[in-house]
Amino acid sequence: MAIKKTTEIKPGAYEDAILGFRNHWYPGFKSDEIPEGEFKTLVLLGENLLVKRIDGEVYAVQDACAHRGYKFSEQLECYTKNSITCPVHAFTYNLKNGELVTIPSDPDSSLIGKANLHSYPVQEVKGMVFIFVGDIDPPAPLIEDVPPGFLDDDLYLVPSVNVTCDCNWRIAADSGFDPNHIFMHKDNEMLDFLKFPFPIASKIKGDDPFEEIEVVETEGGPKGLLDDLNETIPVYEHTFECDGEVGTMKSMFPPDPEGMAAQGFGSITGSLWLPGCLHVDPFPVPGMCHFEWWVPVDETTHRYMITYGKRTTDAEEREQFKQEVENVWYQQGYENFNRYDTILNNGMQETYGDQNYLYGQREVLAKTDGYTLSWRRLASKHNRGIQTRYGKK
Amino acid sequence: MAIKKTTEIKPGAYEDAILGFRNHWYPGFKSDEIPEGEFKTLVLLGENLLVKRIDGEVYAVQDACAHRGYKFSEQLECYTKNSITCPVHAFTYNLKNGELVTIPSDPDSSLIGKANLHSYPVQEVKGMVFIFVGDIDPPAPLIEDVPPGFLDDDLYLVPSVNVTCDCNWRIAADSGFDPNHIFMHKDNEMLDFLKFPFPIASKIKGDDPFEEIEVVETEGGPKGLLDDLNETIPVYEHTFECDGEVGTMKSMFPPDPEGMAAQGFGSITGSLWLPGCLHVDPFPVPGMCHFEWWVPVDETTHRYMITYGKRTTDAEEREQFKQEVENVWYQQGYENFNRYDTILNNGMQETYGDQNYLYGQREVLAKTDGYTLSWRRLASKHNRGIQTRYGKK
Amino acid sequence: MAIKKTTEIKPGAYEDAILGFRNHWYPGFKSDEIPEGEFKTLVLLGENLLVKRIDGEVYAVQDACAHRGYKFSEQLECYTKNSITCPVHAFTYNLKNGELVTIPSDPDSSLIGKANLHSYPVQEVKGMVFIFVGDIDPPAPLIEDVPPGFLDDDLYLVPSVNVTCDCNWRIAADSGFDPNHIFMHKDNEMLDFLKFPFPIASKIKGDDPFEEIEVVETEGGPKGLLDDLNETIPVYEHTFECDGEVGTMKSMFPPDPEGMAAQGFGSITGSLWLPGCLHVDPFPVPGMCHFEWWVPVDETTHRYMITYGKRTTDAEEREQFKQEVENVWYQQGYENFNRYDTILNNGMQETYGDQNYLYGQREVLAKTDGYTLSWRRLASKHNRGIQTRYGKK
Repeated sequence: MAIKKTTEIKPGAYEDAILGFRNHWYPGFKSDEIPEGEFKTLVLLGENLLVKRIDGEVYAVQDACAHRGYKFSEQLECYTKNSITCPVHAFTYNLKNGELVTIPSDPDSSLIGKANLHSYPVQEVKGMVFIFVGDIDPPAPLIEDVPPGFLDDDLYLVPSVNVTCDCNWRIAADSGFDPNHIFMHKDNEMLDFLKFPFPIASKIKGDDPFEEIEVVETEGGPKGLLDDLNETIPVYEHTFECDGEVGTMKSMFPPDPEGMAAQGFGSITGSLWLPGCLHVDPFPVPGMCHFEWWVPVDETTHRYMITYGKRTTDAEEREQFKQEVENVWYQQGYENFNRYDTILNNGMQETYGDQNYLYGQREVLAKTDGYTLSWRRLASKHNRGIQTRYGKK
Repeated sequence: MAIKKTTEIKPGAYEDAILGFRNHWYPGFKSDEIPEGEFKTLVLLGENLLVKRIDGEVYAVQDACAHRGYKFSEQLECYTKNSITCPVHAFTYNLKNGELVTIPSDPDSSLIGKANLHSYPVQEVKGMVFIFVGDIDPPAPLIEDVPPGFLDDDLYLVPSVNVTCDCNWRIAADSGFDPNHIFMHKDNEMLDFLKFPFPIASKIKGDDPFEEIEVVETEGGPKGLLDDLNETIPVYEHTFECDGEVGTMKSMFPPDPEGMAAQGFGSITGSLWLPGCLHVDPFPVPGMCHFEWWVPVDETTHRYMITYGKRTTDAEEREQFKQEVENVWYQQGYENFNRYDTILNNGMQETYGDQNYLYGQREVLAKTDGYTLSWRRLASKHNRGIQTRYGKK
Repeated sequence: MAIKKTTEIKPGAYEDAILGFRNHWYPGFKSDEIPEGEFKTLVLLGENLLVKRIDGEVYAVQDACAHRGYKFSEQLECYTKNSITCPVHAFTYNLKNGELVTIPSDPDSSLIGKANLHSYPVQEVKGMVFIFVGDIDPPAPLIEDVPPGFLDDDLYLVPSVNVTCDCNWRIAADSGFDPNHIFMHKDNEMLDFLKFPFPIASKIKGDDPFEEIEVVETEGGPKGLLDDLNETIPVYEHTFECDGEVGTMKSMFPPDPEGMAAQGFGSITGSLWLPGCLHVDPFPVPGMCHFEWWVPVDETTHRYMITYGKRTTDAEEREQFKQEVENVWYQQGYENFNRYDTILNNGMQETYGDQNYLYGQREVLAKTDGYTLSWRRLASKHNRGIQTRYGKK
């Protein structure tokens, strides 16, 4: 457990955020992963959480007794639906707020109501359970930690993916916004399914790698970066010569701007938001948008979540879209496309796992890494603190 | 191997005793686990031991050649029953005292009789093999490291359990004497077997959590704590309210003081002794007593041993008691009761495994933890040194 | 990856060389382990290498993209036979020299030709692929890192063994030259096959354990130690007394100097060469010689390689010897003899794995360890630097 009691907000360096940024909201589950009355566990930024839905609402407390540290989830014991009892000495806590409710051997103890579990603020929106990991009270508004428009009433969202990946969350975040990691997708089955002429690279128009990136840092709103992906020059084929041999890399399909426009693709906008969410709109097809999160689990693991969105308030259209996500886009969008991001990202963990490698000491960044650098700068400036293991710097 | 040569006795803090206390006697085996002539290995306080019974007596030496560190147990080689030969360079040692006996390539070496293995003092009593881990020579008398009366002639003992547990030895020791960990036993099958009205908690009568605990620190005798378990107020049922819900915890059977007395239960005394032994008398039934040890293996593992005792010098009664332990009490006392201690203790290891958590920094101790605190104080005051890894503080 | 850029040669202490000595040539593979066009990976002194044979020549580069560290071998991607392309951003490198050849998103980048992979010098000789791990440029001549005569035209070599062992390379190197580790071989099946009267120990004739060892440190040549194994007094039987018991160790066959001479065995010479190669000549039989290497992989692992040699330039004799190695000596020389070295060496890793144990602090060296000490001194004096993990001392 890593709970420090402080309410001060001190942004820290991205390089130090191996466990993520503290005092932010993170998606913990898709709503349908937490049925009424079942306990779930979750590791978030290195902390162990015990989670339960009670009368429809989701609550989360630290998964360790405040008395002597017993991990509740090892042997769950309950005498009411809204409490958890430690099986060792019967210390009993209110799951809704973490308060110590009773100690059978000392019912009048002055600890009652004081030796409480840390209770994590929870907000369930858009079919997702967001959890605030931090100390500031009240927590920051959720609207500041999700992409603009995410909470709009007319945006219907269908959470689709929640998987664990074997690399630090920053490796994924560094590549999420980077317009040239698209090279890795060039053979993905989804492109064939959509007959999508997907470029293998994107050239920056001018000389300034930061020029096209819009930094959003409005007071009281989410902090992020915006990029019109059509502002770069797409590359569909590239030939090179190496020591007398000639090699050619190319897209699955040649460029077809008219075809794309006819399908309804105008400009595609990518944007990246603290504490770690990518929004691509439209994607994978016109009329749909895509959100993905990289949620820190521990030093070498993160969870990858995807939700798909459509702007409609019509109930029937919503139901139809839900079916479509389940029947088509989970397979095409995740299995046949974004799953490759997670595989390739894992291939950078061994190198980045050496903390000395990180961030400028041994990387050789190129012109197109302006995107990644912009993200690291924004994240370093606007985060609300660095998560650390208890007792460690 | 972790052998430091010093004869000074310097008690250290319980908080630092992650590998146990040095210069004490620990039970290593039940006697029947070491048949004549067979080598056994043992890890005790982080040290590797090689153990053999020769002509009836048990001997223990370090399991690493003094010359170049080969671990003998990897490939045992012997040319006499009382020696061990390193298979690499044939350095040959006397198992009874660790002395270097011969080097075939240099039979007149000045190392003979000097480059010896550490030889661990061993005493086999009451069907158990006690081993002294330390440097002081001669070792402390065994009688100072076992509960009072343990060596009495009329006390017949039947060693019953020797198992490895996945938590530091102190987690077990902290709970062994603690009268409120009994909550964890409330559903244990043994209580049903005995129709035993076992309380779920014990209230302290006054306000002073240390009042009822008798500290025993007689010069030349074992150091420990004594408690008459009947001095506390037993709780058989406890009801609480949490946010409108009412919960009730209760014992398997209602209290029945007359019934207990009729069975022969008067007062039950628990006592806890350095370096880590609990004595409960009578237990589990009148006429029997129970000893248990928590023996440090390494930082995250200990061995749990139980022996059952009965005061009788009659040979037939002894044989009958031995059968009873094997046929009834191993199952009822260990499998159906104390095994649950070991399971629950393991559930605290993740929290206590973080050394920063330990001992006052993040624990929230309650009134009834006076027992645990008394033990930690006594142990810190009367141990004969802290065990450390070689070359580490 | 552990690449430091420096060209200075600073010999370091053997005690510090847990990852081996930098700026030396090491055998990486037997030639037949690298067929044309197949990628192979290799860990050498803690560094990850990507290896490929192109048009007959073997090349090796660092197995991590210079841009963002992706480990190429996780998903190999190539557009020409002589290049490697990172699947993440398409940075493409020349495998022959490590040069960055192209970046599709920025083909005119100033990084081209500059943000290169480390390219390891490779020399394939005598059926073995030697790789230089270091920074000095040009690398030291290979002839300085192999035993004298190894590259002679009339010496025909048949590489036979390349296996991984679970101990640090120094444990193997310390014992390779040591004339008393032969005790471990006394029951080996090869001795029975050859009816070889192999001693169980070797006594030094005089009092000076260093007297018989010839140190070779000629400028511009390999640095090593030479020993005529017949200069010591062989021991075929040794009797000792331990506490009233008498033990006898003896060779499989009694000494038979005439028989040995009749078989063609004169003197056998053992020699040990930086960075870690043993040469025994003749061995296992007259007319043959044996080379073995201990190649550092990481802190707790090394590779063990054996090649057998015969002096002949006759093509038919060479082919016949190759068959003989494959049909007889792999089984007899390795499986039935030297494999036991690797097993016994692993039994010292637990002790030597504690760095505090190493080298004089807790070893108790005997007279016959002059061989081992001479090797450590020579190695400490003539190595070209200590290998360290990147960013660590």
